[in-house]
Parts: sequence; structure tokens; C-alpha cells
Amino acid sequence: MLERCMGTQRVRQIQRAIHQSKVTFLCLFLTVVVLRGTIGAGKFGTPEQDFNDIREHFYAHRKRVEPHRVLEEVQTTTSTNGDTSNEDSNKNTNNYEQFDVSKLFVDEGVQEKPDPNKPYSLGPKISDWDQQRAEWLKNNPNFPNFLGPNKPRVLLVTGSAPKPCDNPVGDHYLLKSIKNKIDYCRLHGIEIFYNMALLDAEMAGFWAKLPLIRKMLLSHPEIEFLWWMDSDAMFTDMAFEIPWERYKDHNLVMHGWNEMIYDEKNWIGLNTGSFLLRNGQWALDLLDAWAPMGPKGKIRDEAGKILTRELKGRPVFEADDQSAMVYLLVTQRDKWGEKVYLENHYYLHGYWGILVDRYEEMIENYHPGLGDHRWPLVTHFVGCKPCGKFGDYPVERCLRQMDRAFNFGDNQILNMYGFTHRSLGSKKVKRVRNETSTPLEVKDELGLLHPAFKAVKVSASL
Amino acid sequence: MLERCMGTQRVRQIQRAIHQSKVTFLCLFLTVVVLRGTIGAGKFGTPEQDFNDIREHFYAHRKRVEPHRVLEEVQTTTSTNGDTSNEDSNKNTNNYEQFDVSKLFVDEGVQEKPDPNKPYSLGPKISDWDQQRAEWLKNNPNFPNFLGPNKPRVLLVTGSAPKPCDNPVGDHYLLKSIKNKIDYCRLHGIEIFYNMALLDAEMAGFWAKLPLIRKMLLSHPEIEFLWWMDSDAMFTDMAFEIPWERYKDHNLVMHGWNEMIYDEKNWIGLNTGSFLLRNGQWALDLLDAWAPMGPKGKIRDEAGKILTRELKGRPVFEADDQSAMVYLLVTQRDKWGEKVYLENHYYLHGYWGILVDRYEEMIENYHPGLGDHRWPLVTHFVGCKPCGKFGDYPVERCLRQMDRAFNFGDNQILNMYGFTHRSLGSKKVKRVRNETSTPLEVKDELGLLHPAFKAVKVSASL
Repeated sequence: MLERCMGTQRVRQIQRAIHQSKVTFLCLFLTVVVLRGTIGAGKFGTPEQDFNDIREHFYAHRKRVEPHRVLEEVQTTTSTNGDTSNEDSNKNTNNYEQFDVSKLFVDEGVQEKPDPNKPYSLGPKISDWDQQRAEWLKNNPNFPNFLGPNKPRVLLVTGSAPKPCDNPVGDHYLLKSIKNKIDYCRLHGIEIFYNMALLDAEMAGFWAKLPLIRKMLLSHPEIEFLWWMDSDAMFTDMAFEIPWERYKDHNLVMHGWNEMIYDEKNWIGLNTGSFLLRNGQWALDLLDAWAPMGPKGKIRDEAGKILTRELKGRPVFEADDQSAMVYLLVTQRDKWGEKVYLENHYYLHGYWGILVDRYEEMIENYHPGLGDHRWPLVTHFVGCKPCGKFGDYPVERCLRQMDRAFNFGDNQILNMYGFTHRSLGSKKVKRVRNETSTPLEVKDELGLLHPAFKAVKVSASL
Repeated sequence: MLERCMGTQRVRQIQRAIHQSKVTFLCLFLTVVVLRGTIGAGKFGTPEQDFNDIREHFYAHRKRVEPHRVLEEVQTTTSTNGDTSNEDSNKNTNNYEQFDVSKLFVDEGVQEKPDPNKPYSLGPKISDWDQQRAEWLKNNPNFPNFLGPNKPRVLLVTGSAPKPCDNPVGDHYLLKSIKNKIDYCRLHGIEIFYNMALLDAEMAGFWAKLPLIRKMLLSHPEIEFLWWMDSDAMFTDMAFEIPWERYKDHNLVMHGWNEMIYDEKNWIGLNTGSFLLRNGQWALDLLDAWAPMGPKGKIRDEAGKILTRELKGRPVFEADDQSAMVYLLVTQRDKWGEKVYLENHYYLHGYWGILVDRYEEMIENYHPGLGDHRWPLVTHFVGCKPCGKFGDYPVERCLRQMDRAFNFGDNQILNMYGFTHRSLGSKKVKRVRNETSTPLEVKDELGLLHPAFKAVKVSASL
């Protein structure tokens, strides 16, 4: 959300008709191609909708074309997961230039040049973090990085700007959003760090998360996974536990599709609004490789032009962290790809546009714990910008749907205590289970009062 | 905060001169008396200021007399702690009527009478909660009520109304307040429940906490202590750990003074904006005894009159939970007093009016971890009501001081990571410790990165 509140640039007019037909053709082609692929674990996932339906929804409901976080949801009818092989790496790497800041200014005679003696850096180079961390963990058994088998210690990091929102009601939604995260994290034994400080003025906006993430990883070696989550993303499945063991050989998990990244170079082929990053040397190196497009001003502007040119569907605006991640994976797949898991079997990030109108249908047909299109783990209000002045969608639509998403998730909490919202649009709650003199004999439907994934065995005293 | 945003009534003019001289005389008398008493553990506490100074400060700075949460801080120059003997119980109990709802209407011929068949109840009577709970804990060793010796499992409960604040900036302060609580609780291994639902329409406003607290205790037998905290209270000592062992024989801990309650019946002799309640039968019984003055309408109004009549210094307005608690302790000391600890050796609740102008002095002379007047655990902005339309103090004074209190606490968090606010009034942060390639060799000043009170030994796998 921080990124949306700061530093917005105006976009040029996109030639919609040409653009739309290009993408439509390409995606229809891809649909045929991937239909021949293997369907990953589980019949269901997130890519259930026809891409055209999504595109149609997107253009029908968006107010105007606004680049920041305008994330049309790219869907394919099937997904292929876990295809992290290197067979395509050679094909792609040589076609795209590696981003080199020093080359930005050579031919342009631009006066403003970064000091070659002081390129941007997130911090002093560390090359032995795995060893430093392992040593510390060994010496600090009271701060283990695993709370149980398949239960890593996780820190969820989120935040917002330190000043009141431009839109008065924006802070109210930030408040509801953090309550929502508090609820999910309490149930799942996850700690939260809510940031309201800009640690590095050069990396303002959506890039602010990079210095923050690095700081958290290095300060807390006991953290096994850092979960970054935007302030405009809400938990809508309180019962879904991340399948941590699925990622035992990976260090970065984002919602996305391999094909959309490596084949299509689509700027929204993945989402950096909600991702998991394993603490370790690999993470530090990734952050260092990710950061160069971030410093605001000339660097970020010029990097934005490269990203627009190289990535499919990307409008013109300054470099954002998500596009930069796509570019990084595309240009350096052989270096990073193997440890990056693009997950689409559940909504680690779920584009709100195609989810919020289906909540009643979900309640009718499904139940919490699925995490996917039937009951999304996360509903992410990309483009809504309730804190800022200008969003990509009509304000009322956004706010109303954010209320519904909040209540959809909140009902799962209230249900534990015998209550529910009168409707998804109502702040009022009603009782659905009577009080009893033997409260411990009553099991809450979802078993969330004392869920297995929260139980921890405490041995001896401290 | 909820209570301050809802249901405010206008107060009559208090005869200040007479009232002030009465209280001044009584407190001077008490000062002489208690000076002969034993000073409790530790030389410092919270009652350091001359009562007259406080009273003077109070009337000089308050906008107008407003009853809700107008808490002039009653201070004595010494404190006596732990005096929970029953020697005075007989003296007081017979002088005050027990609150009986059915008597409210007998002589008044009021049409609106509560149905004698349906008196207000928080829920079905439970008489064996200790046994039910003990059984459950035995059968659920993975959800222990103690995380270590002297480390009970604690749930901090707070909340606010489900609608946006009347004052647009109010939600921004609710957001900062919950971030503040998230930080303290993360450091101290405490879980948070942020409530935004009105569970019982009869118990709206400040009384809403009672049904909520009961629900939390009964739903979570693993909770040993429930810590209620108002939304306008902030943590200003991130290093202070509650001295849990001090309360091993007590079930309710509130900031207050025995003399102010049992001798003076002062309506602000204790504070219910931040208190600790031990889970158990005693707590359920207390809630049942506390609740009768709460139901809104005739009952609450009439109860308010009784409270104003019986308690010293109380203005005229409907019954509030704090006054009701004072009345309960005064009229039924023999039943409850022994298990109630009125704590004043640190600021479990700290009236903001006498603290916020001293922050720079504190930084100059003291350090976190003291929790008392030198470095208050909690700064509580009673009467400010940033969410509502009308507060008891000038809005700018309140908001500016809330910013300072927030930054005062936030600096202790930022310091862990090598940053601090540029000043107590500034949102911007600056670096105070350089990055290093060996971050784990650097100890944060306060040792809060990995504090002892957070370390938990995890034995075998689940």
C-alpha cells in the first residue's frame, strides 16, 4: 500500500485495441499449448477462468488506465507447477540485457550521473550469512527457526506510511486490514511486524520493502520465512495453512505462473504483494540483485522504460518492484529460477476483481481451508488505493468490496465464538450459537479455537 | 476507546472550589497517615507528585468538565501496596447499598421495568469453571496455560467500533495504537485479539468489554491472564515485563491505590483502561457481579446516579464500568478485595497529562525497563477521544502528544534496528547505527531483539 500512496506518475494513453488483440491472441495460443501439460497436485487451483473473461472484466470495471498496481489477472485454464528446469534458460537470457545502472547514462549525455564510487547498496556485502546464522541458531536453542516439523518460524511483514491517509477513510481500511492479519497470524502462530518508517529515502514507495526485509532477516536469524504482505491484501481463508513442506527446496514463493514469466514475460505473471522468502544467503543475494532498479529519480525512471519495453503488457511508468522481479527471473533464470516457486494452486495472492462477487457462492458451496478459487487464502485489492487520492477503480466499488472481504474473513473468526455478520455488507453481528454452561464441550465448526497448526509443545522451564 | 465514542452524556457544573478544598484536605490527611506505613518493594513507583500539582494541572489544561474518562490523576507521596487485609471491610460494607436492579423502579412508579423473569445476564451461570478448565488443560498439553515459570499465557484484548471514526484522523491514531501494541506484544510473547464487533447491544459503549472478556475466557481455557487495554492507551516502555509472580495470589490487577478506593471511594482511585484478569471461576463471578449496572437505558442511567452519589468526585452521567468497579470493591470488599491487587509501583495505566511533557527528561535521565514514572509502561490518553467528535481536551494538544508518545515507544523498537525518530514530534527516522557485515555481533542496547522473557524452549516435534 505504501507504494501506492507515494510517487505516482501519470501514464500515456495505451493503444488498447492493438494491445488487447495481441494479448488475446498470445494467450489463446498459450492456452492450447499448456492444455497439453501436466496438471499439478490437486484438481483445483487458481487458473480457472478464461483469460478473455478476465480481460473483459478488467476493462469493463476499471476507471481509467493507471499503471501502478494495475494487475489484470492473467489466467490460464490449466497450470503447470514445479517446472523449474533450465531447458529454456539459455533461450531467454541472451535476449534481454542485464540491468546495468552505469550504462543508463553513457550515451545520453545526461548530467545527472550516479557516482560510480557509490552505487546503490542495501548494505555491506555479506557472503557468509548461512554460516553466521547457523552458528547463532546453535548458540541460541531458545530461539529455534522451526517450531515443529513442517512449522517454520514465520514473520509476516507489512506496513503503511507514517502520515494519515489522503482519503480520510483510508486509515479505517488500514485498521481493518491489520486486524484481519492479526487474526490469521494469531491462529497460525505467526508474528507480525508492522512498519511505518521509511528506512531509506532512495527506496521510497513500493521499493521500501527491500531495505526493510533485509533488516528483518539480518536482525532475526530465528526467522525461517519472512512473509511480505501488502496492506491492501486481506486474509479470506482463516483455516488454510501454508504447505510449508512443499517449499523445502525453494527460497522464494510467489503466486504466479511459470509460462507467464518465462515464456510470455508478462509483467503480471507473478505478484510481489504477498510472498514468502526464506532467510539465508540466497535471500540476501536476491535482494541485492533486485534492488538496482529501485533508487528513485533517474535510475528508477530509466529502469521503468526498460521494463516497459521488455515486459509484456506493462504500461509506461517508473520501475516497480514487481516488474523488476519478473525481469530478474527472465534475465537470470539460471541463477534464481531453481529456488523460485511460482505457486498457483492456491491464492497466496488473489486478485480481488474475480473473487469478491463470488463470496456468497463460496459460502453456499464450499468451506474454509481450501485456499484456492473456491475459498481464497488472500484477496488482494490491487489498484484500489483506499489511502491515496486516486485509485484505478471506482472508490465505492473498492470500499464496498473491501468491507465484504473483511467480513468474509471475519465471519470465520466470529464463528469460533458463536457469532457472524448479519450479511457480508453489514458491520453488525448476530448470534448463531447459544451460550452454554459447558463451553468446552462445544466444538467450533472449523476447529480454529485450538488448531493443530498452532499447538506447540513446551518442554521444560526456561 | 469504544466507551468514549459512544453514549456521552452532558455533566452538571461541579462546584470546583468546595470540591477541591475537600479533596485537598483529605489527601493531606492521608499523606500524613500513610507516611507511617511501609513503603513497598522498590523506592520508586507512580505516586511521586504532589496531589495539588496534579489537580492544578488538570484544571488548567482541560477544556471543559466532561465526565467520561475525565481522570484526574490522584497521587499520594507514598504508596502502600499489598494491603489486602480485611480489617476495614466491615466498616465499609454496611454503609453502601448493594446495587439491586429490581429496587430501581419500586418506588418511582416508572413504567419501564425490566422483566423480573429476564434480568440481564452475561450468559448461563457456570459454577465449575475451574474444574472444567483444569480438565481441559490436562487433556490438551499442547496448549499450556504457562509458557514457562513466571510466564503465563496472556491474551491482550482491545478494540474499537466497526465504523469509521467521526473525526477523520481518529482511525490513523487507532492504527498507530494497534501497531504500538503489536510491537510490545511481539516482544513479550503475548497474543492479541482486536475486537470490532458489538456482541451484546445492551452492553454498548464502555460496557462492551464485559461480554467480550467472558467470551474470551471461556473460549480459551489456555489463557491464564486476559489483559484488557483501551485503544487510547499506548505502550511507552517496550522493555518492561509484567512481574507476574507478584500476582500469584491475585486474580485482578488494576492500577490504583487502596486508600483512594477503600477510604476515599474516589471514582478514579483505580483505572479499568488497562487491567489483568486471571482466567477462572473467580473472574466469571466478578464479571457477573460487575455487569448489573451496565444495561443501557434506565438501568444504566439510574445506576449512574447512585455512583455519583456514593463515589467521591464523580460527575453526573450514566454508569460506567470503572465507577461500577470502584463501587463493587467498596461495597463487597470482603468478597473480592483479597484477590484484587491495586498496583501503583509501575504504570499499568499512566495518565498522559503528567507524563507526556517529561519524555525528553526521561530520555535524558533514565532508560526503558522501569515501567514507572521514570519510564512509564503505559501512557493512557484518557479523555482525548481522537475517534469521536468531542474530547475533554483540546484536540491539537491530544494529537500532538499522542504522536510523541507513539514515537517515544517506537524509538525503542527502531533502536533495535539502528534507527530512531528525528525527534519525538517527527515521523521521519534517522540512522543511529551503521549497517555491518556481521549483524549478529551487534547487540541492540536494550537487548530486545532476543529478550529472555520471549525465549521458549520447544521440546520434541508435534
